[in-house]
Amino acid sequence: MPGRHFLQIPGPANIPDRVTQAMSRPLMNHRGIAFKDLSLGLFPKLKKIFKTERGTVIIFPSSGTGAWESSLVNTLSPGDAVLAFSIGEFSAGYARCAKNNGFAVDLVELPWGSSVSEALVYEKLKADAGHKYKAVLTIHNETATGVATDIAAVREALNKAKHPALLLVDTISGLASIDFRFDAWGVDVATACSQKGLLMPAGLGILCASEKALKARESAKSPRHYFDWGPMMSRNAEGYFPYTPATTLLYGLDEATDLLLDEGLEHVFARHARMADGVRTAVRAWGFKVLAERPEVESNVITTVMLPPGVDSDALLVLSETEFDLSLGAGLGPLKGKAFRIGHLGHMNDLEVLATLAGVEMALSRLGAKISLGAGVAACQKRFLDHPMPKKN
Amino acid sequence: MPGRHFLQIPGPANIPDRVTQAMSRPLMNHRGIAFKDLSLGLFPKLKKIFKTERGTVIIFPSSGTGAWESSLVNTLSPGDAVLAFSIGEFSAGYARCAKNNGFAVDLVELPWGSSVSEALVYEKLKADAGHKYKAVLTIHNETATGVATDIAAVREALNKAKHPALLLVDTISGLASIDFRFDAWGVDVATACSQKGLLMPAGLGILCASEKALKARESAKSPRHYFDWGPMMSRNAEGYFPYTPATTLLYGLDEATDLLLDEGLEHVFARHARMADGVRTAVRAWGFKVLAERPEVESNVITTVMLPPGVDSDALLVLSETEFDLSLGAGLGPLKGKAFRIGHLGHMNDLEVLATLAGVEMALSRLGAKISLGAGVAACQKRFLDHPMPKKN
Amino acid sequence: MPGRHFLQIPGPANIPDRVTQAMSRPLMNHRGIAFKDLSLGLFPKLKKIFKTERGTVIIFPSSGTGAWESSLVNTLSPGDAVLAFSIGEFSAGYARCAKNNGFAVDLVELPWGSSVSEALVYEKLKADAGHKYKAVLTIHNETATGVATDIAAVREALNKAKHPALLLVDTISGLASIDFRFDAWGVDVATACSQKGLLMPAGLGILCASEKALKARESAKSPRHYFDWGPMMSRNAEGYFPYTPATTLLYGLDEATDLLLDEGLEHVFARHARMADGVRTAVRAWGFKVLAERPEVESNVITTVMLPPGVDSDALLVLSETEFDLSLGAGLGPLKGKAFRIGHLGHMNDLEVLATLAGVEMALSRLGAKISLGAGVAACQKRFLDHPMPKKN
Amino acid sequence: MPGRHFLQIPGPANIPDRVTQAMSRPLMNHRGIAFKDLSLGLFPKLKKIFKTERGTVIIFPSSGTGAWESSLVNTLSPGDAVLAFSIGEFSAGYARCAKNNGFAVDLVELPWGSSVSEALVYEKLKADAGHKYKAVLTIHNETATGVATDIAAVREALNKAKHPALLLVDTISGLASIDFRFDAWGVDVATACSQKGLLMPAGLGILCASEKALKARESAKSPRHYFDWGPMMSRNAEGYFPYTPATTLLYGLDEATDLLLDEGLEHVFARHARMADGVRTAVRAWGFKVLAERPEVESNVITTVMLPPGVDSDALLVLSETEFDLSLGAGLGPLKGKAFRIGHLGHMNDLEVLATLAGVEMALSRLGAKISLGAGVAACQKRFLDHPMPKKN
Repeated sequence: MPGRHFLQIPGPANIPDRVTQAMSRPLMNHRGIAFKDLSLGLFPKLKKIFKTERGTVIIFPSSGTGAWESSLVNTLSPGDAVLAFSIGEFSAGYARCAKNNGFAVDLVELPWGSSVSEALVYEKLKADAGHKYKAVLTIHNETATGVATDIAAVREALNKAKHPALLLVDTISGLASIDFRFDAWGVDVATACSQKGLLMPAGLGILCASEKALKARESAKSPRHYFDWGPMMSRNAEGYFPYTPATTLLYGLDEATDLLLDEGLEHVFARHARMADGVRTAVRAWGFKVLAERPEVESNVITTVMLPPGVDSDALLVLSETEFDLSLGAGLGPLKGKAFRIGHLGHMNDLEVLATLAGVEMALSRLGAKISLGAGVAACQKRFLDHPMPKKN
Repeated sequence: MPGRHFLQIPGPANIPDRVTQAMSRPLMNHRGIAFKDLSLGLFPKLKKIFKTERGTVIIFPSSGTGAWESSLVNTLSPGDAVLAFSIGEFSAGYARCAKNNGFAVDLVELPWGSSVSEALVYEKLKADAGHKYKAVLTIHNETATGVATDIAAVREALNKAKHPALLLVDTISGLASIDFRFDAWGVDVATACSQKGLLMPAGLGILCASEKALKARESAKSPRHYFDWGPMMSRNAEGYFPYTPATTLLYGLDEATDLLLDEGLEHVFARHARMADGVRTAVRAWGFKVLAERPEVESNVITTVMLPPGVDSDALLVLSETEFDLSLGAGLGPLKGKAFRIGHLGHMNDLEVLATLAGVEMALSRLGAKISLGAGVAACQKRFLDHPMPKKN
Repeated sequence: MPGRHFLQIPGPANIPDRVTQAMSRPLMNHRGIAFKDLSLGLFPKLKKIFKTERGTVIIFPSSGTGAWESSLVNTLSPGDAVLAFSIGEFSAGYARCAKNNGFAVDLVELPWGSSVSEALVYEKLKADAGHKYKAVLTIHNETATGVATDIAAVREALNKAKHPALLLVDTISGLASIDFRFDAWGVDVATACSQKGLLMPAGLGILCASEKALKARESAKSPRHYFDWGPMMSRNAEGYFPYTPATTLLYGLDEATDLLLDEGLEHVFARHARMADGVRTAVRAWGFKVLAERPEVESNVITTVMLPPGVDSDALLVLSETEFDLSLGAGLGPLKGKAFRIGHLGHMNDLEVLATLAGVEMALSRLGAKISLGAGVAACQKRFLDHPMPKKN
Repeated sequence: MPGRHFLQIPGPANIPDRVTQAMSRPLMNHRGIAFKDLSLGLFPKLKKIFKTERGTVIIFPSSGTGAWESSLVNTLSPGDAVLAFSIGEFSAGYARCAKNNGFAVDLVELPWGSSVSEALVYEKLKADAGHKYKAVLTIHNETATGVATDIAAVREALNKAKHPALLLVDTISGLASIDFRFDAWGVDVATACSQKGLLMPAGLGILCASEKALKARESAKSPRHYFDWGPMMSRNAEGYFPYTPATTLLYGLDEATDLLLDEGLEHVFARHARMADGVRTAVRAWGFKVLAERPEVESNVITTVMLPPGVDSDALLVLSETEFDLSLGAGLGPLKGKAFRIGHLGHMNDLEVLATLAGVEMALSRLGAKISLGAGVAACQKRFLDHPMPKKN
């Protein structure tokens, strides 16, 4: 099909050319001298992106699901109880990962569209006087719903309840798109991956572990080998990996982290906030609802759009891909057929946001939805003009 | 700047990824055995694109200006008279190229926005009873104005006037975007280049010469070396070039011609017609004028948009590039500051057209033009929905 | 450093340009329609490469170590006994992976340079009348020593001993370089990865599982989530993956498997045999020893060269990398400093083999080794001339 | 064919990956704001490479032959007499280019293998008391023979003869491989191109013109348009080009000039000298002759090797390409079938030189030449070890 594809799913996004080119560089020896410069340069940049000084960053050849598994098997022993909150498919998935790895998951299921409130966390932990929960699992940005949770408030709930559980946070679709503060928020293990805000294709699971998490690892008895932090940390210290790293992906990550830090994280966040604002303005102009329960928790990374009865979101996705070369995210779980998701993350500009909205409008119109062509585009244009991109320093 | 650039100038357009990749292949020996397959495969495909069986295709490492020069020095002798029509900067440029190469140019200057009519050509040739004109220079698609000339009609004028002059046609921005028929239209030399409908960056000047043109070359006394067809034809026959060819560009051209012929030329033309239609519909929705004197001569490759007084098109270009990552074409010559040009050629899809229009709207709005945001986008969306892309066979 | 690097480690090898280009293609939606074609096309090709009709191929975003882990946790229950043979670092690693995942490993340690004999396997299994061993772990090509084990013979030993244990085979550095026959050899789980004979960078762990292994999975109680075959198989059946796949690596694998199958597996094996023969001929011409205990078990993928006393192989690696842009493999474990490894796998030609040998000679000479410059090169040249590459069909 | 091609022709050479990647960057608007930075950054770097402060650099989309033509039509008037020296196909070609462009060429033909001596130039110019010669055409490095001419000495001859002719020097295969000093040697027009020492594929003709040459242009009456310096200089001054530039090639040239200047020109020259020395040492070890008439004029860019009777160099080229993936240069003109050329220029390392020599040895052996396999390789290895690469500053 002629022209450029618009990959507006909730990650991965379109890869910046500089990152693609970096991944095309000839392979180097992952046990050689030159490799060391690559890896030793990479970790400090990732620490900046996690906003941590005390954390330890670990990179696995894996998807984000692998990062989840690693966060659990390194810190817990078989049968350990964990408290988890389901607010969408991915927070539920983290809990399922814990269950499948042999932990006793106490799962609090909330309606899709909710975020996890400080009050709820406090209540659950307060009730656990015996400290059976060894960890609290939560999600920074729920990719299935487009809801961001206030992790600082979750940490506050732990503190208030004086509960010693580890705080494990999935920031897979949050990191490097919306603000994340590993140290300031007292996170114990943050899980991320390459294919979201980090501007890369999938293939790398990335974690950040606190000193408390590292200490927990020493006594954690879960069987582990591939996702064990121990050999990683000792080999990483010298600039190497215990088994063959995905070198081309590390090349890309090196370039992508340069792009992000050169732009400046706060600018990256402001840019995402602006794109999200433009998209949500368009959704409202269409007369549709954003799923997130209230504006404060709307994600700046993805927007879940509720469709009126009679418009099938699965049909919308097929049509937008085949007729308009536009990939959107499906409504998942209870939202199947009823909602779709627009990814507005990564290296995108105003015109790409507007093209996406224009494509959604045409596909909706084609499906018979009552929609005024151009209405969302116009609303977003106005919003963008009224709120120009902040300048970089 | 994050995101993808929109290169909506009147050529070059965005390069398809497959073409970029082809140009990245390792160099081969241009005197080796493998090279022969590349070049011998290329010429027949270019002949299909020129719609010729009797023509000879020649490729130079040069821009389109080099193709002009080559069309002249191979067919004319110093001081020969040529008849040329100026309807914009590029038709005027072809004439200037002839003048600088030592030919006696009789230049008919028409207002920008005009096409060259059969009647006018007939009149000029009829008046040349002594057949002093050795060639008629004309342009298929004037890139400065967005006007297409009916070359079949021009040929008809030559026939009617029974004039033996060679018909030299610049189809630099026409070929492979709008229909061009070398044989059917009795063209003697067609000049083209890589960076327009052929989906490539600049660097190759491409010509097609008729048997009559080849015969003219035998007696043409203009000094020539670099752009001489003779050594090209004899070496090309064996699959080689008389001097080092631009191999990476030939790789790209090989891939690009595959893309075009796989899509089918008629589909390529229909796609361009549809994109142009969408853009012109938007321009009308904005309340602006397209420069072309009448709808029949509007180009399907580029559209020149006249701006209302008080809106400076040069300022528009600066703003669209710097704020919206959108490159547009300037108003040239008499249109400087008063008009701008939108390129809608090459490998583009609906969403890219709409993004371009959305960007133009925002930039115009920023400059204070009276424009209803989204109006052009909506008009184009409707047009696109009402006229879906024809299916490929 | 000017010029091309020679990456002659025991994998990954230099990536073919076509594969690099494939990995640079724009990302597609891994939940979209187009993706299905990619993945559904890939599995049948991998089955051809494993030489299986009855096996099920599964691909993880991971290194080969992940494939090991997956082979174990899907087929075994906590505490299960397995029989393993250590003949080098990687066979020992597979056993360690089993131990760390909570299985009772009975490890038979053989000298480095050995292969695993049918007799030994038979003896161990015969002694296990109670069938406590649930699996036998072995390695097709030991990357640390350059020794190939006769897997057909190992299977024969199981058969002869009438032992029901699963046969788990690491063919990480064997597959697609030397002959591997999943069906014919009765393998239950074969583990492989992208960065060896499959011509790719690291990032994909690849397994093939027999019906018996799939059946074992149903009762295997090991906790598993990331490396679980279940969700993979059900989603793969429709052309998708349960979590985000490493799409760019799948693009590359798609191209690489085309390259291999277009060349023909038997030709690939013959080419590797010839390269290995050339290298070993050179080693003998230098007067050095190949580690493998006897010629029949010498690997066609890598050669471990024993250095004479006084020549430090670690120094050799530093020197060859920094002065001659040549990466070689280190002597591992007991061979540290005493041996080095030459990788001769993947897309290599005669001149690259000879350049490698020339580089080794210069580096050895620089280190004061008694070596006649050019002697190994000459021996290899002669061998290559006497044994030209077999023609492809 | 598996493995990497060895492109050891006398240019183009293998393109460095960084340059290939630069050429793959998305196109920018050649009339836009960002373009200016690219072009204004390029010219000063090229001036450093020409070693000029007073010269003006001009870049055409063309091959080197176009640069020849440009050097002539800008400085001469129709019928002007020029003195030229033929010492091989390319110096003869420059003269032929002058003849075809309408100048009166006085051609001194010397045996292939000769350089142009100061004495000869002096003699010819001294005899031209009436100063009919408006220009002296000479070649810095004759690509057909591998002979370098002492341009400083040629300038000295002009000075001594007090002859006002312009000194036009073809440094197409010399620039950026062997020392060239535009200012110090009093060159008036130097012609170069992208595909030799400048590390690029073909497609750009590059010239450097002295103030005297620019002054000559003002009165030079040759018809010219495409290759005219006037519009180039006026547009270049603002960072633009009069017609569409070959932007992707400019991207590459920008990167390639960075590579060269970062390495340091003197190091580049030393590296070429060392590679050439290694190759010539091998040729002598084979018992063959280098064509150049004496060691002082041997080129450090290419070596022409004379074959003994009975060994056909054309057969050698076919065999080396088809069997060993090695491209060599043919014997041209009188040397057809009797000699072949090895290119040793650009981004090459020791192992690539040795692989080339090893390939030549095998191909020669296959053709029945009396040659001791490995002999040339060994001689070159020894030479390389005895003369390690000088360190960069």
